Amino acid sequence: MRQSWLERMRDAIADRGRELLKLEPGSRTAHDPLALCRQLLSGHGEASAVALSRAILQLYQGFDAAQRENFFDMLLDEFGPDAAAIEAATARYVGSSDTDDFLALLNLVEPPRQELFRRLNMAPHGTASLVAMRADLLAMQRERPAYRAIDADLKHLLSSWFNRGFLQLRAIDWNSPAQVLEKLIGYEAVHEIRDWDDLHRRLMEDRRCFAFFHPAMPDEPLIFVEVALVNGMAEYVRPLLDTQTPVLDPATADTAMFYSINNTQTGLRGISFGNFLIKQVLTELRAEFPGLKRFATLSPMPRFAATLRVALAGEGRGLSTPLVDALLAPYAETLCAAAGSDQVRQALASLLDGEPASHASVLAEPLKLLALAYVSATRTDGGLIDPVATFHLSNGAQLECINPFADLSEHGMSASFGVMVNYRYAPEQVEQNHESFVGTGNIATARPLAKLYRRLEEIRVALNDD
Amino acid sequence: MRQSWLERMRDAIADRGRELLKLEPGSRTAHDPLALCRQLLSGHGEASAVALSRAILQLYQGFDAAQRENFFDMLLDEFGPDAAAIEAATARYVGSSDTDDFLALLNLVEPPRQELFRRLNMAPHGTASLVAMRADLLAMQRERPAYRAIDADLKHLLSSWFNRGFLQLRAIDWNSPAQVLEKLIGYEAVHEIRDWDDLHRRLMEDRRCFAFFHPAMPDEPLIFVEVALVNGMAEYVRPLLDTQTPVLDPATADTAMFYSINNTQTGLRGISFGNFLIKQVLTELRAEFPGLKRFATLSPMPRFAATLRVALAGEGRGLSTPLVDALLAPYAETLCAAAGSDQVRQALASLLDGEPASHASVLAEPLKLLALAYVSATRTDGGLIDPVATFHLSNGAQLECINPFADLSEHGMSASFGVMVNYRYAPEQVEQNHESFVGTGNIATARPLAKLYRRLEEIRVALNDD
Amino acid sequence: MRQSWLERMRDAIADRGRELLKLEPGSRTAHDPLALCRQLLSGHGEASAVALSRAILQLYQGFDAAQRENFFDMLLDEFGPDAAAIEAATARYVGSSDTDDFLALLNLVEPPRQELFRRLNMAPHGTASLVAMRADLLAMQRERPAYRAIDADLKHLLSSWFNRGFLQLRAIDWNSPAQVLEKLIGYEAVHEIRDWDDLHRRLMEDRRCFAFFHPAMPDEPLIFVEVALVNGMAEYVRPLLDTQTPVLDPATADTAMFYSINNTQTGLRGISFGNFLIKQVLTELRAEFPGLKRFATLSPMPRFAATLRVALAGEGRGLSTPLVDALLAPYAETLCAAAGSDQVRQALASLLDGEPASHASVLAEPLKLLALAYVSATRTDGGLIDPVATFHLSNGAQLECINPFADLSEHGMSASFGVMVNYRYAPEQVEQNHESFVGTGNIATARPLAKLYRRLEEIRVALNDD
Amino acid sequence: MRQSWLERMRDAIADRGRELLKLEPGSRTAHDPLALCRQLLSGHGEASAVALSRAILQLYQGFDAAQRENFFDMLLDEFGPDAAAIEAATARYVGSSDTDDFLALLNLVEPPRQELFRRLNMAPHGTASLVAMRADLLAMQRERPAYRAIDADLKHLLSSWFNRGFLQLRAIDWNSPAQVLEKLIGYEAVHEIRDWDDLHRRLMEDRRCFAFFHPAMPDEPLIFVEVALVNGMAEYVRPLLDTQTPVLDPATADTAMFYSINNTQTGLRGISFGNFLIKQVLTELRAEFPGLKRFATLSPMPRFAATLRVALAGEGRGLSTPLVDALLAPYAETLCAAAGSDQVRQALASLLDGEPASHASVLAEPLKLLALAYVSATRTDGGLIDPVATFHLSNGAQLECINPFADLSEHGMSASFGVMVNYRYAPEQVEQNHESFVGTGNIATARPLAKLYRRLEEIRVALNDD
Repeated sequence: MRQSWLERMRDAIADRGRELLKLEPGSRTAHDPLALCRQLLSGHGEASAVALSRAILQLYQGFDAAQRENFFDMLLDEFGPDAAAIEAATARYVGSSDTDDFLALLNLVEPPRQELFRRLNMAPHGTASLVAMRADLLAMQRERPAYRAIDADLKHLLSSWFNRGFLQLRAIDWNSPAQVLEKLIGYEAVHEIRDWDDLHRRLMEDRRCFAFFHPAMPDEPLIFVEVALVNGMAEYVRPLLDTQTPVLDPATADTAMFYSINNTQTGLRGISFGNFLIKQVLTELRAEFPGLKRFATLSPMPRFAATLRVALAGEGRGLSTPLVDALLAPYAETLCAAAGSDQVRQALASLLDGEPASHASVLAEPLKLLALAYVSATRTDGGLIDPVATFHLSNGAQLECINPFADLSEHGMSASFGVMVNYRYAPEQVEQNHESFVGTGNIATARPLAKLYRRLEEIRVALNDD
Repeated sequence: MRQSWLERMRDAIADRGRELLKLEPGSRTAHDPLALCRQLLSGHGEASAVALSRAILQLYQGFDAAQRENFFDMLLDEFGPDAAAIEAATARYVGSSDTDDFLALLNLVEPPRQELFRRLNMAPHGTASLVAMRADLLAMQRERPAYRAIDADLKHLLSSWFNRGFLQLRAIDWNSPAQVLEKLIGYEAVHEIRDWDDLHRRLMEDRRCFAFFHPAMPDEPLIFVEVALVNGMAEYVRPLLDTQTPVLDPATADTAMFYSINNTQTGLRGISFGNFLIKQVLTELRAEFPGLKRFATLSPMPRFAATLRVALAGEGRGLSTPLVDALLAPYAETLCAAAGSDQVRQALASLLDGEPASHASVLAEPLKLLALAYVSATRTDGGLIDPVATFHLSNGAQLECINPFADLSEHGMSASFGVMVNYRYAPEQVEQNHESFVGTGNIATARPLAKLYRRLEEIRVALNDD
Repeated sequence: MRQSWLERMRDAIADRGRELLKLEPGSRTAHDPLALCRQLLSGHGEASAVALSRAILQLYQGFDAAQRENFFDMLLDEFGPDAAAIEAATARYVGSSDTDDFLALLNLVEPPRQELFRRLNMAPHGTASLVAMRADLLAMQRERPAYRAIDADLKHLLSSWFNRGFLQLRAIDWNSPAQVLEKLIGYEAVHEIRDWDDLHRRLMEDRRCFAFFHPAMPDEPLIFVEVALVNGMAEYVRPLLDTQTPVLDPATADTAMFYSINNTQTGLRGISFGNFLIKQVLTELRAEFPGLKRFATLSPMPRFAATLRVALAGEGRGLSTPLVDALLAPYAETLCAAAGSDQVRQALASLLDGEPASHASVLAEPLKLLALAYVSATRTDGGLIDPVATFHLSNGAQLECINPFADLSEHGMSASFGVMVNYRYAPEQVEQNHESFVGTGNIATARPLAKLYRRLEEIRVALNDD
Repeated sequence: MRQSWLERMRDAIADRGRELLKLEPGSRTAHDPLALCRQLLSGHGEASAVALSRAILQLYQGFDAAQRENFFDMLLDEFGPDAAAIEAATARYVGSSDTDDFLALLNLVEPPRQELFRRLNMAPHGTASLVAMRADLLAMQRERPAYRAIDADLKHLLSSWFNRGFLQLRAIDWNSPAQVLEKLIGYEAVHEIRDWDDLHRRLMEDRRCFAFFHPAMPDEPLIFVEVALVNGMAEYVRPLLDTQTPVLDPATADTAMFYSINNTQTGLRGISFGNFLIKQVLTELRAEFPGLKRFATLSPMPRFAATLRVALAGEGRGLSTPLVDALLAPYAETLCAAAGSDQVRQALASLLDGEPASHASVLAEPLKLLALAYVSATRTDGGLIDPVATFHLSNGAQLECINPFADLSEHGMSASFGVMVNYRYAPEQVEQNHESFVGTGNIATARPLAKLYRRLEEIRVALNDD
């Protein structure tokens, strides 16, 4: 209640300013974003900065698509850099190497709209509004590549404001405000939360949920991770999600499964928290449950099915068709027999197009091998094609296990033929794995996978496929 | 207690990282700031950013003056801009006007140390450490003007991070943590808080204290204002400070006196919160006490005595000697009579050097006039010479009253011969006063002062003194 | 999280005690409630009181119905009063009138089980366990009237512990813990909360929900009231419950409708909070919304249909058959015409048994009159037969309005043929209404009802029906 | 701030009631406590119970000593038990053994003033007011022994309300509200807290302070214990109290010294929390610092000096003169030599009356022996004469060490010639020690003291002194 009182205060301040500014709905200035933005940036605007910034953001929130485009065009044209001035300032600085000349240049290169964004942040809910504005901008950017210049300013600011040092970790449980819990339901994109009962099960004693919050958006989890405390590495997703799964005494668990990680804010795309979140959660879990011996994910491969289909169709990139052919060769007989086809790629495709799970015995091994090939497949620039693998491996996890038929849900089947991956965070190896992956692209693998991975790498070398 | 638990967690994370980094006290890297900073900025540092940033800040905290100078020199030399690269990038951008070329330039012009500071902020208490580092830097800057380049980066970041939108207003009272209250005692610089009893009186029912806090420094009031709820405009400071003053029922007060405003962080110099604080506090007070009719300060003139002495010595600047002479002319007779001198400037000086309060009847009028001249005196660049007047008038206050012998304390006497000023915040005029002061330098004055002020301005015009 | 930590501590203390007591699951004492209770009451038990009380309550929680009966029998036989000792002590006191003799008697008359209950309260969650134990006891009391002696002790203690001075009012909204909100869903018995969306609507800006909590049961609302802020007195319940009803700006509302009040704890039966809750909520609403002019309920008549049926069947008590006949007489023609019957009671019954709402025009007036007769009908002991009317009228409300067809839900129809009642709390009349109702049984009625009520009273007098 | 808002609400409710009751300061009823109390107890009072109870308590607070006496006399005369009715009810119950007859008797024996007190508790701050009222009552009781009957009712209620199950343990540190910290300064009676700096040192990292609070008196610590985390058993009090003592890293401490325990509320005399506090604090400390191996007090002997003086004067009771003589016999020579006297009791007295510490070598042994005799000395009813020993030994502590010259402060010297005692809480022996002390009066002693204690007991037996 106190909060809402403070918010009312803040609104009152903004309202008062609005009044002083004669920003009545009917007035001309009130509807001229350019005039308002100029005033906000001018010295005169200082005394009413809160009111002005609020007026601009409210105006923006009422805009339709065309008006937003006008607004962004204005930011581009009116509040962008001054090339001529920059040229002159550079010349002066390069000539003099003088501190003041450099500061003058620095000042000129930063486009005025960056300061404009900073001032807009003063409005009530300013930060949330700017994050939302960036989401709009990103959506429009495909058609208007020049907007990347605006985005560069917004992203620069948001990166600075959402610095790890400002994020607050909070445990979320059944005692958390419904306000926040409701958002988990809305944001969960990996394994849909069906209803409040489903959510409740995910917050019981043998589950944990942690999120980062920013002080300026206190009700918005920015990223959250759902953890199941279990015995033994979880290979199947169903028991983790089933509301009927009996609740385990968490003190007896030996493994923490990170079974869902969600970034919630489109407007913070490219500003990464996941790394920090996993590490801090890991530290907290170890402190709370000294009995935990294993920390791992059960992760999806969102584009495995699509990528494999392309490869089977003879046009594989990243996961190349020749590699797929080579990997499938040993299974040709069984696959073709099961599919009643005599072409191995076709056979696999037809088995997968049916109900892959019903061919488990035939498909398990080749699927595992192909999935391994997929998660380790690289793009031409050297990065991995799979974003989830990239995320965990660059965070220092190791590839622990590949589980065919781990997710038999409709979505799991259509995205990855049901295959899921365990990435394991072994605290004492995280740093070394990270260094090795970032430095040389080397993927740490658990012993049981190592032999398979070596065979795969040999085939790749033989095919000159890398 | 929860907080300290979270803090322990965060420390544990940093410790773990430190271990992984082999940052044992004995190791070589652990003591090489350059190596540590380079690692922190490199991609490899990402996984251990928290540990690295903590290690660097701890190292810094142990530095003596010479080591700090080395550290800042390193920031200057190793993490500064690359002039040649900037020159080339400017040329490319000016030639192409291309977005990517501009972004490349933008990227180059921001010195790498700015990103370094951003990463240092990830450490536990990183923000507070950077604020403290800037305080060190400002102290050294006088002797090392080149450090202004480093300061520009730090100030730029801190301005962005201490944006009004991130500050939290909190009321401070006798229920606040001793942790915070203790800081008020330490930080109060206008009217010293003598002990906890003095503090307690300032937090009773007819007093209010508000401060801005930043979420990353939750125990540190950044700026605070002390308010007394009284009846009628307070002209004397003693009743506001006396612990024996009877406590008024605040619901019966008609006036809120802002009798002390303190910025607490040297490291945030030049980043201004006062304007926002006063306005928000004003709004809160109006909401809590609808009976309040007047909001005003009782403000010091810290350099009035010094400035006046110079003028009396015949070397006045800002407050010019001819103006002082002209203002004193009508009082020549009484002043000389009282002082037993025949030279009016000398007479005034000797009266002031004695015990001015004992000549109240003789000195009151001339002191008032001189004080008015002082607060409205300008520098060659057009700004006022008095920083307190500048602050309140540019915030939209009006000059309400000048009170000779308002502060008879030793400090009040030596700083301003006891004279204090009321600036009044009339909500409905704030905006207009601000516009008028910022635009044309016009000082809004209350009716009783207006005639005096007009006379003063006429004399100034006659003397061509402006 | 802190709380759960404290709870863990408290559990740890109890565990430690249990260990010291050798209360291992296997030991004999651990399963002998009589031995445990004796030890808890003895001086020796003091050092391990927390552990003992916990052991007893845990034992109790595992009991089946027969074991519970044994337990209560034990309380009756072993920890009841000592008649002979009481007799002797009374004689001594009556003889001496001495303070000490009285104190000795006082001490003897209070059965030892009362002190036993007090000590059981020391266990973690002791208070909640005792409340639950009383709920069990009340259920068994019908068959075992002697248990009333045990209940007298428990009720005496709980009345003292749940004293108004210890209850805490909390506003419940969408920011409240899911833990608490879930309980509202479970406890709401007047107008079922169908799901979380329904609950969410009831906690939006134009709704308020307040509950009393006890510090020893911090997650348990003991009683809660749901309030709708609307314009004009609400006569129909649907708009108050419909999740699609547009949200009103609460600052514009002129009426607060208390549309649902629920006691949640069977174990606190007979310990009344409703009176205090309504008054405090009323005060809070007036403070938050100065625009509110009317405070009223829209209340059910849970037994109206059943009572009326009995009366129509010729066996009315409280609401007597002759009175019903007299009231229906003027409507005989229209009722019989609509029902195609020639006996007025039968006609009414058949209309009501069909779909009463479809005969609205015919039924509205007689239903209103009968409902008025029902809410004002008395039992032989002088009290009203309707508990809801008793509650509000004795709290000082006045009978404001009777609304036929106010609740067309299945439940509303079957309980009261859809009729609901507005009781209005006019702050300035509450006290007088209360005095008058408690003193003379007089029912305050709003002007529009007054004439009808007078007519009713005249008929009653004529029939000698009171 | 919310709290004070709620409090204002509660006050508003009470005010409103007061208004309805026409309890204006001038009215007659407003000043007639008897009329007000009768109304509060009557059914009519229910609707305005909060206002009535507040009016009575405010009236009481304004009473002078004589008026208080009148008030208590009224409680005695008008709201006491009805002997005749009790006699009749007893007869009925004894005759019938009927439940209802017993309940009727139970109801009659509880004096009406007990229900009156329960209703007074509804007022804002009612609980605190009743605690204060009992403090008044206890003070008057010496002269008016009949008031014990009133006290029995108040104590009975307060015991029930301050049940362990309702108390909340809170850690107090430098982050606690000044409001609460100020009270520690006021309440500390064992080792005076000189000022806020002294308090601050007692709340640093190597110190802990815990208190029990009651939800109805949230700012009032009811009992608090101060703990120092040190290495090795503390034998001297100065290092624990000296603000200059270096702060120890608490994780390295092996011993927790409970060096000050204070009950704060006279009005709760005889309602004991200390036992529970020590045990819970012990559990918390073990959880927070697994390295702790020892938990002990450094306790005063407030009446040792006085008791010893009486014994030396030849009139010892509890600590008998013959026992003192027997104990001193072996030291006769050295004592007399040092004192220049030839009578051993006189010699000791004169050494103690000088500056005992300067005769440390001569006095240490005999003082230790006498102190041991003192703490184990019994009254005629079998209890120990020393209340501190009684408290810790009956809580299950063992007598660990007796330290001559442990407290050389003026107060320590005058109260106990500087001797202090360590009582040790060994978690695994607490229960057994308690049983043994409560059952047979046996005092558990640490091994080093055991031999001395046996010798003492032998002398006692020889002297037939017990």
